[in-house]
Amino acid sequence: MAGKTPARHVAILAGGSGTRFWPLARASRPKQLLPLDGSDPRPLLAAVYDRVAPLCDDGGPWVVASRSLGPAVRRLLPARARKRLVLEPVPRNTAGAVALAAHAVRCEAGEAPTVVVPSAHHVAPAAAWRKALATMAARAAASGRIVTLGLAPTFPATGFGWLEAGRVLARTGSGDVREVRRYVEKPRLAVARRFARSGRHLWNLGTFAFLPGVFLDAFARRFPVGAKALTPVLSTRSWRGRLAKAYPRVPATSVDYAVMEREPGLEVLATESFVWDDLGSLDAVARHAGADARGNALREGDVAVDARRCLATSDDGTPVALLGVEDLLVVRTKDATLVARRGRGEDVRKVVEALRAAGREDLLR
Amino acid sequence: MAGKTPARHVAILAGGSGTRFWPLARASRPKQLLPLDGSDPRPLLAAVYDRVAPLCDDGGPWVVASRSLGPAVRRLLPARARKRLVLEPVPRNTAGAVALAAHAVRCEAGEAPTVVVPSAHHVAPAAAWRKALATMAARAAASGRIVTLGLAPTFPATGFGWLEAGRVLARTGSGDVREVRRYVEKPRLAVARRFARSGRHLWNLGTFAFLPGVFLDAFARRFPVGAKALTPVLSTRSWRGRLAKAYPRVPATSVDYAVMEREPGLEVLATESFVWDDLGSLDAVARHAGADARGNALREGDVAVDARRCLATSDDGTPVALLGVEDLLVVRTKDATLVARRGRGEDVRKVVEALRAAGREDLLR
Repeated sequence: MAGKTPARHVAILAGGSGTRFWPLARASRPKQLLPLDGSDPRPLLAAVYDRVAPLCDDGGPWVVASRSLGPAVRRLLPARARKRLVLEPVPRNTAGAVALAAHAVRCEAGEAPTVVVPSAHHVAPAAAWRKALATMAARAAASGRIVTLGLAPTFPATGFGWLEAGRVLARTGSGDVREVRRYVEKPRLAVARRFARSGRHLWNLGTFAFLPGVFLDAFARRFPVGAKALTPVLSTRSWRGRLAKAYPRVPATSVDYAVMEREPGLEVLATESFVWDDLGSLDAVARHAGADARGNALREGDVAVDARRCLATSDDGTPVALLGVEDLLVVRTKDATLVARRGRGEDVRKVVEALRAAGREDLLR
Repeated sequence: MAGKTPARHVAILAGGSGTRFWPLARASRPKQLLPLDGSDPRPLLAAVYDRVAPLCDDGGPWVVASRSLGPAVRRLLPARARKRLVLEPVPRNTAGAVALAAHAVRCEAGEAPTVVVPSAHHVAPAAAWRKALATMAARAAASGRIVTLGLAPTFPATGFGWLEAGRVLARTGSGDVREVRRYVEKPRLAVARRFARSGRHLWNLGTFAFLPGVFLDAFARRFPVGAKALTPVLSTRSWRGRLAKAYPRVPATSVDYAVMEREPGLEVLATESFVWDDLGSLDAVARHAGADARGNALREGDVAVDARRCLATSDDGTPVALLGVEDLLVVRTKDATLVARRGRGEDVRKVVEALRAAGREDLLR
C-alpha cells in the first residue's frame, strides 16, 4: 500500500427513517440527528462528519440525506457542507444513495477514491478507524475493486451482517486486504457462534471504498432497473436538476442487496484496530450510554430504587424514576412514552406499525 | 339490632399525603382527589362522599381534610359539604382527625352514632357496604362500644391489618357482631395464610362506629398526650377558632395505634357482604383498573406489543407504548415518569424519599 494516495472523498449516508428509535426519532428527526452515542454529546451526523473530516480536502465530506431533512442537516453542519450535500427527493434506501454519491464525486473530482460510511455508529479510537478508511481508499485506487470493511468479531453478534473472507491479497498497517467469499445476512445465534470462532468471518460494517466509475459500472450491471431509472441523472454533470423526476423511480433497496452481494471480486479490509457498534436500535445505544455500577444509564435527576441494567432518557428534561425493575429501555418525549424490554430494541418498529395502524401518524411525523 | 336507629352521622377521613401515588399524587393533590378506582370515573373523595350520602341527613357527610386542601375539596364536593368540612391546620395522621370528627358531630347533633370511613377504597356493591355501616352505627348506639368493621378474608392479604374476632355478641343482616380479641399489624405471608384459614381473623377495614362521647372517652384514656393538646378544642362548641393553635401539638399517629389497639371492649361487625380493597398503592389501583385479556390496564391510544399485566396511565393524555414487558406500573405526569415493578407500589415512597434527598421538592408539591 505504499505510494501516493490520490485525493480521497468520503460520503456519509444519512438517510434512514428512525422507526427503531421512536419516540425519540421521528420522520422529521431521524436517529442521525439525535445524540445517541453516549461517548459523544453531539448528534450522530455531526459527530461522524467531524470524525471523517480529517480524511477530506477543504470541501469536507459529502452527505446524502432526504430532502425533507435538508434544513435540519444544514443547521447541524458547518457552512461548507452545503456544497456537498446531496438531497434525495424521497428515501430510496442505500442503493440509489451510493450511486448519487459516486456520481457527485465523479462530477467534481473525477475518479477520486471514495469511501462511503453509515451515519449511526459508535467507533473508538476514531484515528484507527480513519486510518482503516484511508487504507481502503488507497486499496480501491490501486486494485480498481470495491473494498469493504470487515471487523474481526469479538462476540457472536446476531444483529450484524457478516462477510466470509478468503485469500489474503495484501497486508496493510490496518490489517489484511482479503477476497470476499460471500455476504451473510444476520445469522442465528448458533451460526454466529461458529462464525465468531472461524477466523474467516468478519462483521460487515456497511462501509465501502471505490473509484466512482468502478462502483457505477457494478451498479449498472447488478442493478439495471435502478441504473435505468437514474440514467438521466448519471449521464450529466447538471444532475441535481434531474433528481426530482428520476430518483423516485429507483427501487428502494439496499446497496448490499442490489449491488455488493451480486458483485464478484469484492475485497475486504479485515481489521481489528478499533471497536465498533452499529447504533441501530436502543439496545446498542444502551451499550454505549455509560452505565453506573448497577448497569443503569440514567441522567442527572433520574431516580433508581432497586433498578438494574436500565436505560432512561427523555427529551424534555423531566426525571424518570425506576423502582424494582430490570433490563428496561425507557424513553419519554413531549408526546409519548416508550417502555421496552432490553433486547427488544429492533421491535420498536412494531410499536410504530401499531401506531400507524391506529391512525396516530401525528406521533410519527 | 331491632328498634329505632338514632340519626346517623358519617365522617370521611380525607387526610393523607399521597406519597405512594407519586407522581400522580402530590402534596397539593393527594390520592383522594384523584380518580384511582377504575370502576368509578370520579375522584375517590367525590365517589365516597356520594356513596355514604344516603346514610346521612340533609347536611350530608362530614369530611376531615388538611387545610391546604380546602379549596380543592370545596371545588370537588357539593355546596352543602362546606358546613361539615373540618380542616386540619396541619396533617396529624388519623388519631386527632377522628377526635375532631367526633367532637364536631357532638357539637351539632349530640350523641348521634357516628361512622368514620377512609376515603381511598374500592367497594362493591355499595348498597351492601352502606347496610353494614348502618348496622355498625345502630350497634354502637345500642352497645355503647366502639364497633369496627371486619371483612372475611378471601385471600391471605399481607397489605392489610387484620383483627382477631372472639365471641359472637349479636347477629345482624350484615353479619355477626363479635368481640375484638386483638389487632394484628400487616402480617408476613405465612401468618396471613394461617389467618385466611382460621375463621377467626378478619381484614381490618379501618372503619369505626361510635357514639362521640364513647370515642372521646377512649381517646382521653388511651391517648392522654393527644387529648391534653386538644383540650382547648374539645372543651368548647366554638372549637374551630382554636384549632390553629392546638392541633399542631397533637402527636401525629394513627387512631388504630393511639386508641383502638389499646381499648378493650371493642366490637367488630364481621361481614362478607361486599368486596373491598384498600386503594393504598398503585398495585391496588392496578387490581381494579379493568384489564384486557393479557392483563394490561391501558387507556385508549396506548400501545402494547408482547406486554402483559401492566398498568399505564398519564395525566396529560399522551400515549404509553409497552414492548416486551411484564408486570409494570407506568405513570407519566407533565413533570415526571415512574416505571415500577408491580408488587412494589408500597415502595414508591422510597422514590419520593430519594427525590426529597436530592432536593427535588419541586416534584413533590
